[in-house]
Amino acid sequence: MRIRLFWIGKTKENYLNEGINRYLKLINQMAKISVIEIKEKKPYRKEDNLLSETKEILRQTNSFFLLDEKGKEYTSVELAELLRDKSSIDFVLGGPFGVSDEIKKRAIAAISLSKMTFTHEMARLIFLEQIYRAINIIKGTGYHH
Amino acid sequence: MRIRLFWIGKTKENYLNEGINRYLKLINQMAKISVIEIKEKKPYRKEDNLLSETKEILRQTNSFFLLDEKGKEYTSVELAELLRDKSSIDFVLGGPFGVSDEIKKRAIAAISLSKMTFTHEMARLIFLEQIYRAINIIKGTGYHH
Repeated sequence: MRIRLFWIGKTKENYLNEGINRYLKLINQMAKISVIEIKEKKPYRKEDNLLSETKEILRQTNSFFLLDEKGKEYTSVELAELLRDKSSIDFVLGGPFGVSDEIKKRAIAAISLSKMTFTHEMARLIFLEQIYRAINIIKGTGYHH
Repeated sequence: MRIRLFWIGKTKENYLNEGINRYLKLINQMAKISVIEIKEKKPYRKEDNLLSETKEILRQTNSFFLLDEKGKEYTSVELAELLRDKSSIDFVLGGPFGVSDEIKKRAIAAISLSKMTFTHEMARLIFLEQIYRAINIIKGTGYHH
């Protein structure tokens, strides 16, 4: 299985970066995962940035799921069902300003991690742990905490 | 406002500890927060451990909310409403084996962070960020990511 995550800008918090790298390594032992970091444009002029980020994302993928707090909530088991039997899957995670309407429209479906609002950087770590959990559910390894 | 979190055992992942300490410091600038780490009993004999942990928790608090994946999902704004105007509030977070039925029964209410299953250590970080977010919502500071 090949999984690609698209997200906007570097992860600035070091402790989150550590956790993200930890899960990327763990997942890589079971599947092929890569992160495509879309360059964050500065200064932060919301509309222009979303446009430029949108173009860059759509240049690289035209079939993707979106992580969005307004999306449908999945359980970990439902996420595993989504991944099961797919040879490849792409996910787009929003930046500090979310994503453009264009990205929302083009997404196959939107997935929400929680009713609560998370920081966009923390959502990266949380989602990677969920992907790791999903692969373990599929493979029946008994991973749990 | 005084907030107390009860949880079982140390946080073993260093990167999570860093994040947890970061949010404890941030929250402490706005409210009085403390973590009471209930000693984790080994070897892991599920029932006995839950019993001993339960006793220790109930010795220290008799009015608390429980974080439990089977609880009710709150939005960040609803969590802020829960904290608003309270002079003190206690939360209990489960360990790797969850919590005893006694704790579930005694809790004022159970709060779920997500439909997804998180590691119990990651739930600590996620919940601390939510408390920080809730206090900022109450104080109207405009904190967001």
